[in-house]
Amino acid sequence: MDQTSNGAADHKGKLRGGIDLGGTKIEAIVVDQSNKVLGSSRHPTPIKGTPEDVAKEMAAVMKEAAQAAGTTTDQLAGIGVGSPGSVDTAQGTVSSARNLPGWDGSYALAAALTEQLGAHVKVGNDVQVAIDAEYQIGSGHSYHSLLGVFWGTGIGGGMILDGQLWHGRGGAGEIGHTVIKRGGRRCTCGNNGCLEAYAGRAAMEIRARGEIERGRKSELLKIMKDKDRQHFTSAVWAGAIEQKDQLATELIDGAVTALGAGIASAVNLLDVPAVVIGGGLGVRFGQPYIDRIRTATAKHLFPGHQPPDIHLTSLGDLGGALGAALLAKDA
Amino acid sequence: MDQTSNGAADHKGKLRGGIDLGGTKIEAIVVDQSNKVLGSSRHPTPIKGTPEDVAKEMAAVMKEAAQAAGTTTDQLAGIGVGSPGSVDTAQGTVSSARNLPGWDGSYALAAALTEQLGAHVKVGNDVQVAIDAEYQIGSGHSYHSLLGVFWGTGIGGGMILDGQLWHGRGGAGEIGHTVIKRGGRRCTCGNNGCLEAYAGRAAMEIRARGEIERGRKSELLKIMKDKDRQHFTSAVWAGAIEQKDQLATELIDGAVTALGAGIASAVNLLDVPAVVIGGGLGVRFGQPYIDRIRTATAKHLFPGHQPPDIHLTSLGDLGGALGAALLAKDA
Repeated sequence: MDQTSNGAADHKGKLRGGIDLGGTKIEAIVVDQSNKVLGSSRHPTPIKGTPEDVAKEMAAVMKEAAQAAGTTTDQLAGIGVGSPGSVDTAQGTVSSARNLPGWDGSYALAAALTEQLGAHVKVGNDVQVAIDAEYQIGSGHSYHSLLGVFWGTGIGGGMILDGQLWHGRGGAGEIGHTVIKRGGRRCTCGNNGCLEAYAGRAAMEIRARGEIERGRKSELLKIMKDKDRQHFTSAVWAGAIEQKDQLATELIDGAVTALGAGIASAVNLLDVPAVVIGGGLGVRFGQPYIDRIRTATAKHLFPGHQPPDIHLTSLGDLGGALGAALLAKDA
Repeated sequence: MDQTSNGAADHKGKLRGGIDLGGTKIEAIVVDQSNKVLGSSRHPTPIKGTPEDVAKEMAAVMKEAAQAAGTTTDQLAGIGVGSPGSVDTAQGTVSSARNLPGWDGSYALAAALTEQLGAHVKVGNDVQVAIDAEYQIGSGHSYHSLLGVFWGTGIGGGMILDGQLWHGRGGAGEIGHTVIKRGGRRCTCGNNGCLEAYAGRAAMEIRARGEIERGRKSELLKIMKDKDRQHFTSAVWAGAIEQKDQLATELIDGAVTALGAGIASAVNLLDVPAVVIGGGLGVRFGQPYIDRIRTATAKHLFPGHQPPDIHLTSLGDLGGALGAALLAKDA
């Protein structure tokens, strides 16, 4: 994807870069001062190698996005990165990013990228920068407090409380590991009954493949092959739902119910006025599913509370990269 | 219970009152500047009548506590009240206190008590003042953020986040209505699968009575009668556990597991460093059960997080009244 603009020259030194480092893709954008996207690029995340290899790929994607915006990375006012794993923003390091290749230890990502891109780079937690984007320029911009829920490969979450991102001891937001069924399904985290074990795309794929192996009929594998994918991506799930595939429908229905229980538990505790839902599946399924999640949530809201507003992200797939670019404001 | 002190005269005008208004009892204390209890009194909460009747009883209990401290209420620097229901501290009103007689509407409790007691009265939410007591002078005093869980008739909760009580839109802290089992037991709130439906004393009593009616053997009713109680109080449950009553043991074990799931969900979301457990059952069962709840919580904590410290309240039964008295500091 390449978007070009003739306006970049006018913004020289005022443009910012944002890189969303995901487990499956690296997305980079260049934005102007009003957060308008002037250029973007996307590559698959390397599945082998070391953090150095990932950093090189990130630099390449960022350079392409800059080129698409009619500039170069060394002309940018700053570049922000939203990264998985445990992020130390002050040190610019990322550790324990277990869904990235060879990234069990700590790596000085900001320093490596700053050197390769010739602009100051600031690293933040991927989910937290995405929440911040919703709060500053997305569906949450009219609220002082909100809960963000990212329905994708896993279930990420984060909170803005009275205008501040709540970090806890650095790991806050694990709404995906809310227990929604004591003694329930095994989660990839090793525990049982987590929301993510019912609603995460990876968990649903494991479940679906198991059912298919045991003889259950489903179009999921065929749709995956037709779309030339290795996994049951959001597009694969959406395709199966469109074809009224029974297994896919059951699993997605279960995910909606699970999301309702998890969101309601969080809202009962925090009493925030708003919930914003994003993530690959959230964006793909869109408003009709937000309405279904709202209904599922209502069943478990504490009766004395006013229900929260529940919105679809208004930033689409770019929420993570936009949030990363916002981080560069302080770079 | 009456505690007297000869020191009250020295503190004239520096003493404060605290009233804990509960569904079953009204507890009042007088404390000195270092929050030492100089006098206290306790009455059952009226089960019939109007908010006026409850206020009159509260005034009587507070006067007794003052007398026990060797003073009178009009000599107090201020009086705080921890109240159930929806509390408007600025207006001094309490509404929708549904476990109190005739209290569906709004009642100007602070004004009524101020008139009867001759001292300024400030009203706060019962659970929130109890959390504040843990934070300021209890087991949570060395933490900047904590989760309080009150294991009693229901399951109350509250949070101190970076030194501030988190109110949400006024109703935050309903950890009792965390969904721990989707499609699970009916809760008194009308929803299904709430923590409180498994661990609240009232819910456990309903469950136990149902089992006994269906022919299950249990010593619970006998112990209740021996202790001259109308309900399965904390003392009744503790007595049954001591006698290794199987039904009571099953239900309390289930409560511990449920509390673990609910606490872990909240900690996974908030990543707070500490949890303080109080409430009638929490205080009655004490440290051995705190250790069991810690183990039950560990099973559902997100593996990437450092486990929180989990403490028993150090304020015992008086946490609510002490928190109310703290409120009077700002009265």
